[in-house]
Amino acid sequence: MNNPVPHLQTALTGPLHEIEQHLLNKQVEIECWFRNAWQNLAAPINSSVDLRNAGFKLSPIDTNLFPAGFNNLNPELMPLCIQAMQATLEQQYPGCERILLIPENHTRNLFYFESLSVLKDIIQKAGFDVRIGSLLPEITQATEFELPSGKKIILEPIYRKQNCICIDDFTPCLILLNNDLSEKIPEILTHITQKISPSTELGWSTRLKSIHFQHYGEIASEFSAMVDIDPWLINPLFRNCGEINFKTREGEDCLINYVQELLDEIAEKYRQYNIDQQPFVIVKADAGTYGMGVMSINDPEQIRQLNRKQREKMSSGKGKTTISKVLIQEGVYSFETWGDDNGVAEPVVYSIGHHVIGGFYRIHKQRSPQESLNAPGMEFEPLAFVNACNNPDKTMKPNDSPNRFYAYGVIARLAVLAAARESQEIQS
Amino acid sequence: MNNPVPHLQTALTGPLHEIEQHLLNKQVEIECWFRNAWQNLAAPINSSVDLRNAGFKLSPIDTNLFPAGFNNLNPELMPLCIQAMQATLEQQYPGCERILLIPENHTRNLFYFESLSVLKDIIQKAGFDVRIGSLLPEITQATEFELPSGKKIILEPIYRKQNCICIDDFTPCLILLNNDLSEKIPEILTHITQKISPSTELGWSTRLKSIHFQHYGEIASEFSAMVDIDPWLINPLFRNCGEINFKTREGEDCLINYVQELLDEIAEKYRQYNIDQQPFVIVKADAGTYGMGVMSINDPEQIRQLNRKQREKMSSGKGKTTISKVLIQEGVYSFETWGDDNGVAEPVVYSIGHHVIGGFYRIHKQRSPQESLNAPGMEFEPLAFVNACNNPDKTMKPNDSPNRFYAYGVIARLAVLAAARESQEIQS
Repeated sequence: MNNPVPHLQTALTGPLHEIEQHLLNKQVEIECWFRNAWQNLAAPINSSVDLRNAGFKLSPIDTNLFPAGFNNLNPELMPLCIQAMQATLEQQYPGCERILLIPENHTRNLFYFESLSVLKDIIQKAGFDVRIGSLLPEITQATEFELPSGKKIILEPIYRKQNCICIDDFTPCLILLNNDLSEKIPEILTHITQKISPSTELGWSTRLKSIHFQHYGEIASEFSAMVDIDPWLINPLFRNCGEINFKTREGEDCLINYVQELLDEIAEKYRQYNIDQQPFVIVKADAGTYGMGVMSINDPEQIRQLNRKQREKMSSGKGKTTISKVLIQEGVYSFETWGDDNGVAEPVVYSIGHHVIGGFYRIHKQRSPQESLNAPGMEFEPLAFVNACNNPDKTMKPNDSPNRFYAYGVIARLAVLAAARESQEIQS
Repeated sequence: MNNPVPHLQTALTGPLHEIEQHLLNKQVEIECWFRNAWQNLAAPINSSVDLRNAGFKLSPIDTNLFPAGFNNLNPELMPLCIQAMQATLEQQYPGCERILLIPENHTRNLFYFESLSVLKDIIQKAGFDVRIGSLLPEITQATEFELPSGKKIILEPIYRKQNCICIDDFTPCLILLNNDLSEKIPEILTHITQKISPSTELGWSTRLKSIHFQHYGEIASEFSAMVDIDPWLINPLFRNCGEINFKTREGEDCLINYVQELLDEIAEKYRQYNIDQQPFVIVKADAGTYGMGVMSINDPEQIRQLNRKQREKMSSGKGKTTISKVLIQEGVYSFETWGDDNGVAEPVVYSIGHHVIGGFYRIHKQRSPQESLNAPGMEFEPLAFVNACNNPDKTMKPNDSPNRFYAYGVIARLAVLAAARESQEIQS
């Protein structure tokens, strides 16, 4: 079989091949380092990390603790998912047998349900009794949905019994959130005695991307020292602003200053590595997801010149939230392309516990290498990774697919580690 | 792709489909049961279990704690092996980074070296520094062997440094035995402070199959009660004799009596299930491996009538041992066949820790369904399992390959559990 892997379309691959070569050479040390890092630290049960591969730089740009998209993974990696789920749950929740999965509230998104169905299947085959409980008030009885794949999924109403959440006579020992709680933490999920993962405080009503990338930055530095690379090669620089009101322009100066600062810092790095590209930054909500209110900017003046419609857009996040805190993140070019139309390809790497179990590419034909590929209504074509991410091959070239995916797995695990530290911090 | 899976060639599949159906129906309970069983019990780092599938009965006949044959596994399952190795070692040997692999002493068996090379690769990719130390006195310096696959393997001399075993300046934290120590426990491996796995006492100079099958029988009973099947369907009956000398005929009466007893017991079971086959038993060394001195018998008179040559053969095990203790095991027909010549197929299931990671069939064209397929000089054709053993599919038939392999994985895990209890008993 030919390797159906996106083409890394850039002459500037020097430093990245260097990264990949470093990761390959130090594979044993890297795994030892991870093992050590995970001692006494619990990884999220499942997560996905969006990466961008600029050839000269490879870094995470978003870490999702409520991942969808399980249906986009290579079905041949199911055994790996099942095994990782077993290893993770038996370690973190010994004795647990019954799991309640709480999904997002979009009942019309059948693609989301396909993902949910795969996630449920993984947990069930790992040997747990799983049911799906909905937060939607309109789900008053067990409701079956038929999916495009022919699978069926049943949502059931949950109820509170003292400090427990139940379905019928099913009392779960663990509640696995697959709902990012963008709006707020629902009453029914507060003060329960059952274990809940991730913590409701890691939902987007309270979680801040800047805290995540603060942790990530520290981890990237520790890791880079061990592997002997410049941390910048794997770490997106960022700034975060306090309160911003795009409509009234309050806080705009802070934003403009930081954008300039960050663009300067990136330009300095580009000069250092002789990178002939224009620096850009991504401005997005510090709390929130789904790529609402995301701007790609290469000149701070663009902020001053936002029109009313653009200001509206930047003010509204998912659900009813309004963006107030803003993250300014170094833009990382995505120089992987796929197909005859040269669609931009962005890898998304999935982990169960601290095991990377695969991933897929989001392929977007109408976007440029410097745009976000995770935007509302975004149409992407998923392309499952052909290989797992834990089977590098030193007899092959650093950029050959098993090695490229190994590198993706390593960088994604650094982000998962950052999420685990975030979680630990919240719980302590 | 067509499922290249052996054909189960018997009309008598009723009870087995029943087993497989039971296992499928109770999949979640089974996994809970295993999780529970593994709490506070360490699985062998690696093992292989020989199974026989008679259609009406599915059971292990041998559990190997020093498995070869890793090269016969489906290469696509490597990620599963690597992940299982990581999960197992990080749990059982936290902090360990350097592993010494001690192989068998047959340096001319390049197939064995191919297996060793795959095993080394799995451990290395799991993130450990691995070296191969030989017990052979003629290995006085690092010696490279080139393998048919093009891979290379290096054997190195080991030396004792006080109570440690080292190679050069490499001091391992764990010694992984892939040598079954048939003859005796080598001096150099005694009284060392490093961890050694499996325990040297599980080598064939001291381990008894009858102890293993004693544990297996108890486990099969516990398991069968939970799954609600007759334990006989998954448990090979056995007897074991004290000292036997085939040459002088000492102890022969005991053997003959037990053979008769066991044949009667099997016949009774065959009647109960309307199985129109001739009962048979396998007589083999209680300590030992490699199928030396293995007889298939359906009439105790065959023992009295053994000629001198046959008696010689039964008296010599692997290496310099002479068989004295004998196991009489219920013969389980192997009714799986493969290919145009209807070669007999026997599944071998591999585990790393308590995770089943795959397996292969030994296919033997010159043997009948009631002969041992693991004999010296035995020529078999390996046929890798197409599927992993942890991904059953309830929408398919009980005998379809994902479900058949799931059943194999379950039964193999019962045998691995028995081995773990053996090991625990030795260490306590």
